[in-house]
Amino acid sequence: MRIVLDAMGGDYAPEVTIHGGVWAARDFGLEIQFVGQAGVIQAELKKHNTAGLTLPIIPASEVIDMEDHNPAGAVKTKPDSSMVVGLQALRRGETDAFVTAGHSGGALAAALLHLGRIRGIKRPAIATVYPNVSERGFCFLLDIGANADCKPEYLYQFALMGGTYAEQVLGIPKPRVAIVSNAEEEGKGNMLVQNTLPLLRNGPFNFVGNVEGKDIPAGLADVVVTDGFTGNVILKVSEGVARMLLDSIKAEIKARPLAMAGAALATPAFKAVGSMLDYREYGGGVLLGVDGVVIIAHGRSDAYAVRNAIRAAHRAVESDIIGAIKSGLDSAS
Amino acid sequence: MRIVLDAMGGDYAPEVTIHGGVWAARDFGLEIQFVGQAGVIQAELKKHNTAGLTLPIIPASEVIDMEDHNPAGAVKTKPDSSMVVGLQALRRGETDAFVTAGHSGGALAAALLHLGRIRGIKRPAIATVYPNVSERGFCFLLDIGANADCKPEYLYQFALMGGTYAEQVLGIPKPRVAIVSNAEEEGKGNMLVQNTLPLLRNGPFNFVGNVEGKDIPAGLADVVVTDGFTGNVILKVSEGVARMLLDSIKAEIKARPLAMAGAALATPAFKAVGSMLDYREYGGGVLLGVDGVVIIAHGRSDAYAVRNAIRAAHRAVESDIIGAIKSGLDSAS
Repeated sequence: MRIVLDAMGGDYAPEVTIHGGVWAARDFGLEIQFVGQAGVIQAELKKHNTAGLTLPIIPASEVIDMEDHNPAGAVKTKPDSSMVVGLQALRRGETDAFVTAGHSGGALAAALLHLGRIRGIKRPAIATVYPNVSERGFCFLLDIGANADCKPEYLYQFALMGGTYAEQVLGIPKPRVAIVSNAEEEGKGNMLVQNTLPLLRNGPFNFVGNVEGKDIPAGLADVVVTDGFTGNVILKVSEGVARMLLDSIKAEIKARPLAMAGAALATPAFKAVGSMLDYREYGGGVLLGVDGVVIIAHGRSDAYAVRNAIRAAHRAVESDIIGAIKSGLDSAS
Repeated sequence: MRIVLDAMGGDYAPEVTIHGGVWAARDFGLEIQFVGQAGVIQAELKKHNTAGLTLPIIPASEVIDMEDHNPAGAVKTKPDSSMVVGLQALRRGETDAFVTAGHSGGALAAALLHLGRIRGIKRPAIATVYPNVSERGFCFLLDIGANADCKPEYLYQFALMGGTYAEQVLGIPKPRVAIVSNAEEEGKGNMLVQNTLPLLRNGPFNFVGNVEGKDIPAGLADVVVTDGFTGNVILKVSEGVARMLLDSIKAEIKARPLAMAGAALATPAFKAVGSMLDYREYGGGVLLGVDGVVIIAHGRSDAYAVRNAIRAAHRAVESDIIGAIKSGLDSAS
C-alpha cells in the first residue's frame, strides 16, 4: 500500500511529519510518498535510518500554511503546493490515501477541487474519534467543522458515512447512531434537528435518537451526528473543560502540602487520564465524502500523531471505506 | 423584600424547596412567600424553626411537573398551578421576584404568558453562571435553552441583557462580551454568527469578538452569547466531560494501590475541583427579558441550591436589574 504524506503541512513540519512518515513506513510496512520541497525532504530523511524502506519523494514547490487566511483561494493560487500535488496523485490513482497535518480548511478545499465528492454525496464532513467512558473508550463525532450550516440531507448522509466508517474501519458492530440535540425528548431540538429526525428514523443504520451534550462522553452513542458548527463547539469545549479541570486539580494539590505528597503517588493515574485529552492516539480527523481516503491530522501533531494518522489511513484503505460508502449510498437511495 | 418561592417545583419538592426557603429567609432577612398546596406547605414548615420569620403561604392547588410533556399547554390547562399563581403575584406587584426549581420550559411559558416580555425585547433568554479559570471563577452564558433557533437581533439583545446583568448583579466591571463561534477568526462562523457580528460590533457594550469552545473555560470572555441550542450543548457537554474525567481519575487511582494512598491525601483537592461541577453555588438560571425577576433553579436542586437561587433573586432585585435592562434598551435604540 502506498500513502502520500504532506511533508510540509503542520505546525512542526517538515521535521516531525517526516519523522512520523518514516516511523509509519517501518511499523506498518507501507510505502510512504513524501510530497513537498524535495531538498528539504531529502535533508530531513538523512536524519533517519531508512534502510529497507520505500520512501519516494513527489516534488511540490509551494506550501499552503496558516498564513493563508483564505485557504480555498490558496488552493487555486498555489497549484504546485504539497496539498494540491498530493491530492492530484491520489486522484490519478498513484497512491492509496492522502495524509496531512496542514490547514484543515485548505485540505477540505483542495480535496473538493482536486479529488471531488463521492457521486451522490452533497457535502463532505470532517469526523473524529471522541473519548467516552465506554469500554471501547471512544465514539465517532461528525461534522466537526467542514459545514458550519447544514441541511437535513447533509446530516442524513453524515449518519450514513459515519455509521459505515464506525463499522468498517473502527470495528464497531451495528454502531448506535444518534443526533445531538438540546433535550432527550424527540419533540425538542432546533429546526435542523427536528427536520432531520424523520430522515434518520428511516435510514439503513441503527438510529437510537437524540443525545444531549452530557450523553456523548457518557457513551450513549457510537456515532454522534451534528452540524459542523455544533461539532466544533463540542470538541473545543471538551478540550477546554478537560484542561481547566486537570490544571485546577494540579493547582489545588500544589496548594496543599499533604495532598502534594499524595499526588506524587497518583501521578500515573493523572497521566492515564491526561491521555484522554490526547488526540495523538487517534490519528486526527477523517474527511468523509470525498472520493478517496483523506486524513487531516491536528496541526499540532508530533511524529507519533503523524504515524497514527497514517495508521488511520492504512486501516481505511484496507477496509475499502470508499467502496463501502458508495454501496451504502446505493442501498439507501 | 418579598420573594415568592414555588414550593411545589423541583425533583425534591416540597421538602427541600421549603427547607431552602426557610434557610434563605433566615440568612438574608427576606420575606419568603411559599406558593403551592397550603396543607403540604404547612406540614413541611412545622419541621423547621421559623420563629421571627415572615413566611406567608399563597395557595395554589395544581402543579406543573416533569410529567407535563407540553409545558406551554400545562400553563393554560393548570391556571391554579403554583407557577402560574406565583407569576401572577409578581405581575400584580405583590412580590419582588419569583423563584422555581420546576420545569424550565413551564416556567418560561408561564412567565411569557403571565408576566410578559420587557417592552422591546423580542425573546427572553435563560442565562447561567459557567465556571472558568479566571480569578472570579466564572463567566455568564446565555442563552442556555429558551430559544433553540435564534435571529441576529435576539443574540444582540442577549448581549445587551447579559452585559447588564454581569455588570449590575454579578459585579463585573465593563464585562467582556463575546459570541461563540467555530473559529477565532471573524470571517468564519455559521450564518447566524456572521449576521450577528455587525450588530454586536456596534452595541453599547465591551464586545471582544468571537470565542471558540475552548476559550470559554479558559476565561477569555465574561459574557458568552450564543443561541439556546448551542448554549445547552455547551453546558451539557461540559457537565459530561467533567464527570467523565473525575470518574476516570477515581477509577485509575483505585486500580493502583500506591496511587490510592496518595489520593486519600489529595481528597480535599478533588472536592475543591468537584465543586466546579456543582451549580448549587450559583443559584441556577436567570430568565432575562421578562418583566420581572425570575430565577429558574436546577430541577435537582437541594435546599442549599434553593437558598442560593433565592440569594440570586435577592441580588437581582436589589440591583434593579429590570430597570437597568430597560434603560439599556432605551439607550441602545
